[in-house]
Amino acid sequence: MTAGLKASGKPDLSLLLAPEGAVCAGTFTTSMVRAACVDLCADRLRDSGGVARAVVTNSGQANACTGDRGLIDSLRATQVVADRLGLPPEVVLICSTGVIGVPIAMDTLLAAVDPLVESLSADGGAAAAEAILTTDLVEKQIALEAELAGRRVRVAGMAKGSGMIHPDMATMLGYITCDAGVPAAVWQAMVRRAVQRSFNAITVDGDTSTNDTFLAFAAGEPLPETAFDELEQGVTLVAQHLARAIARDGEGATCLIEVDVEGAASEPDALRMARTVCGSSLVKTAVHGRDPNWGRIVAAAGRAGVPFDPASVALWLGPHQLMASGEPMAFDRPAASAYLQACVQGAYLEKDCVCIRLKVGDGPGRAKAWGCDLSDQYVRINADYTT
Amino acid sequence: MTAGLKASGKPDLSLLLAPEGAVCAGTFTTSMVRAACVDLCADRLRDSGGVARAVVTNSGQANACTGDRGLIDSLRATQVVADRLGLPPEVVLICSTGVIGVPIAMDTLLAAVDPLVESLSADGGAAAAEAILTTDLVEKQIALEAELAGRRVRVAGMAKGSGMIHPDMATMLGYITCDAGVPAAVWQAMVRRAVQRSFNAITVDGDTSTNDTFLAFAAGEPLPETAFDELEQGVTLVAQHLARAIARDGEGATCLIEVDVEGAASEPDALRMARTVCGSSLVKTAVHGRDPNWGRIVAAAGRAGVPFDPASVALWLGPHQLMASGEPMAFDRPAASAYLQACVQGAYLEKDCVCIRLKVGDGPGRAKAWGCDLSDQYVRINADYTT
Repeated sequence: MTAGLKASGKPDLSLLLAPEGAVCAGTFTTSMVRAACVDLCADRLRDSGGVARAVVTNSGQANACTGDRGLIDSLRATQVVADRLGLPPEVVLICSTGVIGVPIAMDTLLAAVDPLVESLSADGGAAAAEAILTTDLVEKQIALEAELAGRRVRVAGMAKGSGMIHPDMATMLGYITCDAGVPAAVWQAMVRRAVQRSFNAITVDGDTSTNDTFLAFAAGEPLPETAFDELEQGVTLVAQHLARAIARDGEGATCLIEVDVEGAASEPDALRMARTVCGSSLVKTAVHGRDPNWGRIVAAAGRAGVPFDPASVALWLGPHQLMASGEPMAFDRPAASAYLQACVQGAYLEKDCVCIRLKVGDGPGRAKAWGCDLSDQYVRINADYTT
Repeated sequence: MTAGLKASGKPDLSLLLAPEGAVCAGTFTTSMVRAACVDLCADRLRDSGGVARAVVTNSGQANACTGDRGLIDSLRATQVVADRLGLPPEVVLICSTGVIGVPIAMDTLLAAVDPLVESLSADGGAAAAEAILTTDLVEKQIALEAELAGRRVRVAGMAKGSGMIHPDMATMLGYITCDAGVPAAVWQAMVRRAVQRSFNAITVDGDTSTNDTFLAFAAGEPLPETAFDELEQGVTLVAQHLARAIARDGEGATCLIEVDVEGAASEPDALRMARTVCGSSLVKTAVHGRDPNWGRIVAAAGRAGVPFDPASVALWLGPHQLMASGEPMAFDRPAASAYLQACVQGAYLEKDCVCIRLKVGDGPGRAKAWGCDLSDQYVRINADYTT
């Protein structure tokens, strides 16, 4: 809903309510400078052992670097929402996103709690996905349905974020819900692995934020243990879709970049290399210029801090192989450039994805990371933006 | 001199000859993908215990990712130069800079060795400083003279680099010479510390290179031990000047950025924070937009991986204090913007330096790092550059 927290007059307040018995797993920014709402969410989930029922999200003010007032406001907001919902405040969380250093306009927020709770509905997901946005160009939502252990299970998610995006969580908020019951410890481990393979594998500009929060709720009839693996696949798919959508919506981006590293000693090694290539300004500008610049890709891989034999490197750009045995190959340069060009004009999140595949040896480690190209538009957005 | 290695017809070959008895300390790229010439330099300095007499530098071809041929060519080039100088090949080094994946045009280089050796002269420094450049806009040179232990000692240096610049050595070449004798082990330790406070404290775009090499020669009448501290100050000043010049000449940059972190637990902690702030795309674009955006600075500091108390942070932009006790202060925004604006129009390397000072506690750790702003010009240079 629109509470009036944003000067733009766009929707800026949302409420997610989970059924009784819901477990909740949270992942938060690793920054030393984190907003009061992040402290509140992390503390409450720790104290409750992973139980939560609701999360209110305001956009417009990040409520970071706001001193004691930040925590007082976050406590007050969750208290008022909890009272209105008839819940103890300990199971209500709050996420804030927007300008750092600005406290929440509390009068405006509190005045909107009644209509916010009244507007709760089973099909309010799209409105909530819109209300959590800041500089995003598009909403990021997905819902999957699968038959697990003989019944239909749904996993759905929404997210926001386009600037300050980097591994280890950034100015992003992400929420996943699942309508099956899973023990809290199992759910937390499942979600942690899914985040590692999704939100922690994307980068837009290398900057992380003070407010990054990912919350995943599960509530419903308990699912048998035999279905956990399949459920984790679903949760991972949903998280990866949202993460890719955030990377694609990177400020000034014209395409998504996927880097697939295989043959590393371990999955963490492969992820580290894939993230480094995705985050390289020189790789990002080369893709923006539609230049099949294999030298920049392999140079970025070389500085990831992961040991490998340079003589064993093979590199593909889409269907075009550019390197073998650590040396450049003769390749059809116009065709490779045309591949890059076609990616820009493709369908959102599918055909507009530039795929870079790097084989660095014969090890079992494989991982993917996602990012976007770096355009002059990115610079203009961030240089012209006035605080 | 101009050997014809560069298509542009600009100077592309140089030779540095040190007096008999010279010791040499080298620092090289930490990338897993490194050029054959880097292997050759590192191996020879290790085997000789830090003794070298000459270094030949070609620009135009990086001779990286060139397979076995790369090393064969590097060995052959140093052999021919050594023969012509009447030196054993083990004391001759080679540095290459230019396009990755392209071998040295050996016929062209070898045909130029005779005139190259003939052109050696005591005042050839400026010509050499020009011949090592690639995409640089300006030459980077400095010479200091001081009275140490009752006699004049000179320390001089030259460097190149503007893209692919990042801590841990990047596409940069740097050379320092000193006309006083210093034991090899002392010289190596002195140079390692100076590099840590200079070349390893700069960043242009986060990308490191396959060829980064820094070589420091010392030869002359032995200096007494009592003068070592003062000599190290001189070597550090020379290295810092060159490092700042590389950062200022960053592709598309309009100003130098200096980040001074104090109050950290240790110097390495302070350096890590200073480097992270310097490397933040959001800080770099804010400076480019002349926006006194304290939020981006403190958010970057927060993700450096260094523990500190956010409530103790104070922040200055030039003479303007923007934060105290972890919260924003009321400050004169037009004056702070004017400070940023004036930096762009100031004198090279002095008044065109934007100074960011961050106090993160009461610890003894202090360090500076240098970078530059991120402009749309940077993107255009790197997106339009065709391999």
